[in-house]
Amino acid sequence: MSVETNVVLYDAETAAALDQAPDGILRHLPTGPYTFETGATLPQIVLGYETWGTLNAEATNAVYIAHALTGDSHVARGASTEPGWWDGFVGPGKTVDTNRYFVVAANMVGGCSGSTGPASLDPQGVPWGSRFPFTTIKDSVRLEARLADALGIKAWHTVLGGSMGGARALEWAVEFPERVRNCVVVAATAESSAEQIAFAQAQSAAIRLDPDFAGGDYYANERVPSAGLGIARRIAHITYRTAAELDVRFGRAPQGSEQPVASAGLDRGRYQVESYLDHQADKLVGRFDANSYLVLTEALMSHDVGRGHGSLRDALGRLEGVNFLVGAVDSDRLYWPEQSELLAKTLPNPCEVRYITSPIGHDGFLTDIEQLSEPLKREIFS
Amino acid sequence: MSVETNVVLYDAETAAALDQAPDGILRHLPTGPYTFETGATLPQIVLGYETWGTLNAEATNAVYIAHALTGDSHVARGASTEPGWWDGFVGPGKTVDTNRYFVVAANMVGGCSGSTGPASLDPQGVPWGSRFPFTTIKDSVRLEARLADALGIKAWHTVLGGSMGGARALEWAVEFPERVRNCVVVAATAESSAEQIAFAQAQSAAIRLDPDFAGGDYYANERVPSAGLGIARRIAHITYRTAAELDVRFGRAPQGSEQPVASAGLDRGRYQVESYLDHQADKLVGRFDANSYLVLTEALMSHDVGRGHGSLRDALGRLEGVNFLVGAVDSDRLYWPEQSELLAKTLPNPCEVRYITSPIGHDGFLTDIEQLSEPLKREIFS
Repeated sequence: MSVETNVVLYDAETAAALDQAPDGILRHLPTGPYTFETGATLPQIVLGYETWGTLNAEATNAVYIAHALTGDSHVARGASTEPGWWDGFVGPGKTVDTNRYFVVAANMVGGCSGSTGPASLDPQGVPWGSRFPFTTIKDSVRLEARLADALGIKAWHTVLGGSMGGARALEWAVEFPERVRNCVVVAATAESSAEQIAFAQAQSAAIRLDPDFAGGDYYANERVPSAGLGIARRIAHITYRTAAELDVRFGRAPQGSEQPVASAGLDRGRYQVESYLDHQADKLVGRFDANSYLVLTEALMSHDVGRGHGSLRDALGRLEGVNFLVGAVDSDRLYWPEQSELLAKTLPNPCEVRYITSPIGHDGFLTDIEQLSEPLKREIFS
Repeated sequence: MSVETNVVLYDAETAAALDQAPDGILRHLPTGPYTFETGATLPQIVLGYETWGTLNAEATNAVYIAHALTGDSHVARGASTEPGWWDGFVGPGKTVDTNRYFVVAANMVGGCSGSTGPASLDPQGVPWGSRFPFTTIKDSVRLEARLADALGIKAWHTVLGGSMGGARALEWAVEFPERVRNCVVVAATAESSAEQIAFAQAQSAAIRLDPDFAGGDYYANERVPSAGLGIARRIAHITYRTAAELDVRFGRAPQGSEQPVASAGLDRGRYQVESYLDHQADKLVGRFDANSYLVLTEALMSHDVGRGHGSLRDALGRLEGVNFLVGAVDSDRLYWPEQSELLAKTLPNPCEVRYITSPIGHDGFLTDIEQLSEPLKREIFS
C-alpha cells in the first residue's frame, strides 16, 4: 500500500494546471494502474473529481468531502448549472467556506459518476461488468490519496463526510493519519454492523435476481436490471427514513384515485407510500448503474477500519494526532446513534457526539447538516 | 356480510361430530362459496383448523388463537408428533390451559397450510394461482365465523394473537363484538402503518421480480419463485429482530472459513449474518408458497379495522363490551410499542399496555409470550 500511495505521479507544474478549472466542474485524473485490497489489478483507474476555491501556497486549506453511497462529487453548484447536494453547507460564506478553503470531492472508484467503475471500458473497449474487482473503502481512500498527491495536497485540513462518506472520511484518517488534521464523521460507524450487512445483502440479492442483470454483463443488452435496482433502493430508502416520518407524510392514504383494497385481483392500486418509494426507485434507476450499486454496497458491507491494523481499537489508536468531530442524527435507525457514541468514546481523544435533531432519520445528515454548523465553525473551521 | 356469516351451515349433530377429533390434528371444514370483501367469489373455501380440549355444554370456554403471517394452525403439539409454535404457552396446565378451555386455530384463507389458497384447485382442477382473489383480514375473520358456527361457538371466551395474529384477533372483535368477550392483541396494530406497507411492498416486488414467478401461475412449472420468496423473507426477518441482537450474535464475523472480503471478485464469501438470513430464507421456502406469501402480505397491508366502519375510532367504539389485554415487545421496531399504546388508549375502555421485555424485537411475541402469563391468568383466564 505505502509503495503505491507514495509514488509521485505528478510534478508541481501538473498540479498547478489541475487547479485551474472552475468550481464544481467535473474533471478526470488518470491515476495509473491499481491493485485493489483483495488483489485484483486494473490497468488504469480514473478519478472524476471537482474542486471549489483555491489551494493556498502552503497547501494547508484543503478540505476533502466524501460522498455517500449514491452520492457524487457535485457537492456544491459552483460554476455549473446543476445544484449541489450540500449547496447550503458548502460554498462562499457557507459553513465550509470556499472563499477560505480549497474543497475537493472525488467520485468513489466503482461508482458511475465519473470515476472508473463497472461500466467503464477495459483496454479492449468492453465494459468491465462482472469482472470489476471487489472494492473496499480502503481502496477508495488509497486512490484518493493519489488525487491529493496530484493536487499538491500533503495533508488535508479536514476530511468530512456523512453515511458512507463518513466511513470514507474515517478511513482516510486511519489509512493516512499524518495526512489528516481534522476528521468529521457524521451518521457513520467504524465498521458496518450485522444489521447493515443484512439490509445490504437483501439489496444485492434483489439486483442479482433481476433477469436483466445477466450476471453483471448487461451493458450491450437492450434492458438493464432496473427492477432489481429499484427494489434495492426501496429497501434502502425505508432505512434512510423513520416510521414516524412515513406515517405523518403518507399514513394509509391511497395514491390519488388508486384503490389499494378495492380491486378483486392482485393488480391493485397503490398506497401513497408505495408511490413515493416507486418514485425514489425510478429516480435512482435513472441516474445510477446497478453494477455500481452492487460494488459500492459490497464495499460498505466490507467497511471495517480495523482490517489490516490488528483490531478496531488498534486502528483508532493511530488517530492520536487527528482532531475529531463526530455527528449523528438522533432518529437514525440505520446508523444508530449508539454506533456514533461508540466511535466517539473509542477514539484516543474521546469526544462528545454532536446531534442533528430531526424526525426523518438517517437522511437528516443530508437535509439538516447545517445543525452542525456552529460546532464545525467553532472547532474545525475557526 | 351479515347475511353470509349468519347462514347456519351446520346443525348441532354436525357440530358435535366435528369436535371428536384429537387435539392438534389438522381437520378441514368446507365452508361453502364465499364472496371476498373486494367482490370476487370462490365456489368453495375450505378452512384447515385444529382444536385442543373440549367445548363445554354452554360453549362458553372457546378460545380462538390467530396465527401470524407465516404461522399456521399448529399452535400446540396435542396428539400430533410435531411440536407447536406456542407449546410452552398453550396446553394442559399452560397459560392457555387446554384442560379448561377449548382452543381453536384456523389457517388463514389464502395461506398454504390447509385452508384454500392460491395453490388450491379450482373446480376444473387447475390451481387458482394468479386468479386467487385479493384477501383481507376481514375476509379471514368472516370465514372463521363460519368455523365458529360449525363448532357451535356463539361467542369466543377469548380471541388472541400476536403480530398479524393480533390484527386478526382485533378484527374479530371489531367485526363481531357480540361474539368476543376477551381480546388479546400482542405486538400488533389497529391499522398497518406506512412503514409496514413500505417494507411489505419491497417484499412483494421481490417475489414478482423472480423469473420463476411466471405471473403467479408457476405450479405446473419445474421451478417455483424460491429466490424471490427468500429475499422477501430476508427483509421481513431483519424487521422481526433488532440491530443489537444481530450485532451481539453475529457482528462482522465471517461464516466458517468463508472470506467476505478476500475474494477479488463479487463471488465473495459470506458474513455469518448473511448465512443466518440465507438459512431463514431456505427454511421458509421449504414450507411456504410464494403466492400465499403475496396474498397474506397484501392482506396485512390492507389491515385497517376502520374500513367499513366510518373511521378507526368508530370501529373501536364498537368494542365497549369487549375486555382487552394489549401487549407489546419493548424492542419491537416493526410493530412499534407506540402503535400498541395508541390502540390501548383509543379503546372505549382504555387499558395499560403490558410489555414483553426482550432484546430481540418483534419476534419476542413468539419467544417470550410467557412474560404475559401473569396478567393473562389474572385478567383473562382467571
